[in-house]
Amino acid sequence: MGPEEFRRAGHELVDWVADYRARVAGLPVRSGVAPGEVMGALPAHPPEVAEPLEALIADLDRVIVPGLTHAQHPRNFAWFPSNASLSSVLGDILAAGIGALGITWQSAPALTELEQVVCDWARQLCGLSDRWKGTIYDGASIASLVALLVARESASGNSQRAGGLQGEKRPLTVYCSAEAHSSVTKAALLAGYGAGNLRLVPVKKPGHEMDVTALAALMADDAASGRRPAAVVATAGTTATTAFDPIADVCQVAERHGALVHVDAAMAGSALLLPECRDLFDGIEGADSISWNPHKWLGSVLETSLYYVRHPEILVSVMATDPSYLRSSLDGAVVQYRDWGLPLGRRFRALKLWALFRLEGAEALRARLRRDLANARRFAALVEAAPGWSVLAPVELQTVCVLHTPRDGDAGRLDPHTLAWCEAVNASGLAHVTPAILDGRWMVRVSIGAEPTEWADVVALWELMQEKAAAAG
Amino acid sequence: MGPEEFRRAGHELVDWVADYRARVAGLPVRSGVAPGEVMGALPAHPPEVAEPLEALIADLDRVIVPGLTHAQHPRNFAWFPSNASLSSVLGDILAAGIGALGITWQSAPALTELEQVVCDWARQLCGLSDRWKGTIYDGASIASLVALLVARESASGNSQRAGGLQGEKRPLTVYCSAEAHSSVTKAALLAGYGAGNLRLVPVKKPGHEMDVTALAALMADDAASGRRPAAVVATAGTTATTAFDPIADVCQVAERHGALVHVDAAMAGSALLLPECRDLFDGIEGADSISWNPHKWLGSVLETSLYYVRHPEILVSVMATDPSYLRSSLDGAVVQYRDWGLPLGRRFRALKLWALFRLEGAEALRARLRRDLANARRFAALVEAAPGWSVLAPVELQTVCVLHTPRDGDAGRLDPHTLAWCEAVNASGLAHVTPAILDGRWMVRVSIGAEPTEWADVVALWELMQEKAAAAG
Repeated sequence: MGPEEFRRAGHELVDWVADYRARVAGLPVRSGVAPGEVMGALPAHPPEVAEPLEALIADLDRVIVPGLTHAQHPRNFAWFPSNASLSSVLGDILAAGIGALGITWQSAPALTELEQVVCDWARQLCGLSDRWKGTIYDGASIASLVALLVARESASGNSQRAGGLQGEKRPLTVYCSAEAHSSVTKAALLAGYGAGNLRLVPVKKPGHEMDVTALAALMADDAASGRRPAAVVATAGTTATTAFDPIADVCQVAERHGALVHVDAAMAGSALLLPECRDLFDGIEGADSISWNPHKWLGSVLETSLYYVRHPEILVSVMATDPSYLRSSLDGAVVQYRDWGLPLGRRFRALKLWALFRLEGAEALRARLRRDLANARRFAALVEAAPGWSVLAPVELQTVCVLHTPRDGDAGRLDPHTLAWCEAVNASGLAHVTPAILDGRWMVRVSIGAEPTEWADVVALWELMQEKAAAAG
Repeated sequence: MGPEEFRRAGHELVDWVADYRARVAGLPVRSGVAPGEVMGALPAHPPEVAEPLEALIADLDRVIVPGLTHAQHPRNFAWFPSNASLSSVLGDILAAGIGALGITWQSAPALTELEQVVCDWARQLCGLSDRWKGTIYDGASIASLVALLVARESASGNSQRAGGLQGEKRPLTVYCSAEAHSSVTKAALLAGYGAGNLRLVPVKKPGHEMDVTALAALMADDAASGRRPAAVVATAGTTATTAFDPIADVCQVAERHGALVHVDAAMAGSALLLPECRDLFDGIEGADSISWNPHKWLGSVLETSLYYVRHPEILVSVMATDPSYLRSSLDGAVVQYRDWGLPLGRRFRALKLWALFRLEGAEALRARLRRDLANARRFAALVEAAPGWSVLAPVELQTVCVLHTPRDGDAGRLDPHTLAWCEAVNASGLAHVTPAILDGRWMVRVSIGAEPTEWADVVALWELMQEKAAAAG
């Protein structure tokens, strides 16, 4: 396809996207398709001859849109926000269109240096000191894996350069709270520690944050029995309830054992933009690495996950390779992001964050986050005040965990009741919320923060919830 | 930013991209910026207030474009092709614009099922049997890491569910050729095997493919000395010379030890689209996993790396998590791609490959690949016929490895001479090639296959090379 054909087609698809965003509020939030329905509606074989753009657009409307649960819908309260701000979309159009190849600094200097710039801009907006240097990963799962690989190598004296973890005599151990994201467990397992060396530290009630006394005891026990504590993952904003592990205390305990501390702030990192929220992250400067995802609440298009370290040279020592075909005369004078993470090549990831920051401005971003915090508090107050309803955890940010007790108060019926009214809300297509297990029972998470979500949308959800819960008994 | 503002801005940026692609042939291929120059030309702090689109576009022209080495340039012969076909760019505009969240099937059914569809389309185009099931990763480095993690768990009886690699009594070993990509070594180290358990198998001359007799001997030695061979990575198309390890023989040897075989066809996988090239991959059906990157030669926007397995259930057993907040009533009935790789969330990756296949058509894609193969053979013949020039390795695909001997024939001066004329070509801005070490000495790789590269561009490069080599002595 040549530039002129692209120009025409690009205009059509930009229009299609603009129209989609303009009409998304009128679509059912959750897709109603059955498994296999999308696949079944598309040709089983690839076309031999080029099809016209119109055919592709027709399938978008006929098959793809009905097959979507709409993350950009104003009444999307499911999981965590996954905002793709249109200003960020503009940056990503450039990334695809320029088609730069990020495998060395030399292959696209601006790709590397703009990534340095936006990572530093984000650092400043978060109030982090300039000791932190950042890079962009695709997601926080990768960040946790990298952090635990670095911890493994630090604790084992760079075992990967010798016999690997296989040569270890004193098993390395890893710690996170029982409320940590599933990706932390996955990372510990993939990094080779083994489930038997992963400690899920109990949480305190009602906040569901890590019990640091329990952490200290577990680490001391492990050290006493010949194990080596390698890392603690502190979660800032857990998935179920946005609980904040006490980072300062975690760092203090970890330091006794020489264990690294990684802060998983995948969702909550956006709150660092608000000075009034920074107390939640107290002690973060003492951690060894931080990850947070501007592709969640803040509005950068997926996949934009920031990873900050205080000692890039340690990260690089674990991740670096130096094949002849990637060497250049500037090595040593420039940042080579291929040595800062798992992949070799990257697209021009920084553009989507650059466009977001520039076309929105920090003030407007903060104002939107504050709107969501206020809406969450206001919503929680409504829930608390309603008979039969309760809020199950402190509302630290924009996620409210709610429970409705059935009229007969039958505790045995609580879980099915919760799942029933939650499903009824979602099946209506008028809003979307997702359940999770907290303290052994199902509850419903109302995660406020889709970019177009205003108070009226929250009110609409609340009325729907009450209606469906009442109907479910 | 609202839909109407996006519509106007999107049109402007599509125009900017179309103009960029139309004029890229007139720009210096390699960026001439010095380290820090791009960073220094941009504000040190993020803006508090929104900036107009014009300011962003001005910086694109003033700072970003001069800071790019242009992968989409017709005289880009560096590394491997990294084609971002404009038809694929269209698909990626949709991915960003729709902003779907791929964390479960339920969160975006069409995202999951279109990925199944395009992976299967690509499989059919490659002539692979329907026993292969695919998914999209961001790059082949991740594919190698996943393959070696799966091999680790297979050979160790799922050690991650117990003591991890730390509990191993019989060290696991991994094998690849000495010409395998650096990401394979990196993957083996990160997976925890340790450098001491990674065997770089010698290659044969002149083809530089793995010496399977040597592989068999190494595996037998390891097994005899109490080690457990876990995996062999066979490279289809090495980075230096596009050499092909003999996959059928590798599989036969690996099978004796119960080791898994991963085929890294990152670059060369595109050649599977051509029936006349499939002999190079003989035996591929016997492998356990295959990765190849449509984001290289074929033209899909980065990051599009296909990963195929014959036994998804084994992959899932290593990668799966099951937290309450991601469960749905359809689990078991649908594919959950979060359990097929490292990340939890993904953007709508399939759209860029879907758009490429539909808007180009398989015939046109094959014709372009054949054009490049023919240009490479024709170019190699020119080089071979020219006094002082030689082709160093068989031209299996589209990469030609060349050497020019200085007039005085001084072998001690060969490396500096090679690097000097290569640098002179690149400094001219008229073409871009990259050097690599082969058999202990530097040579220059001419990797033909940028989407707009025609025979006239190859001829222009050849004239430039001769001029610069002569000037360098």
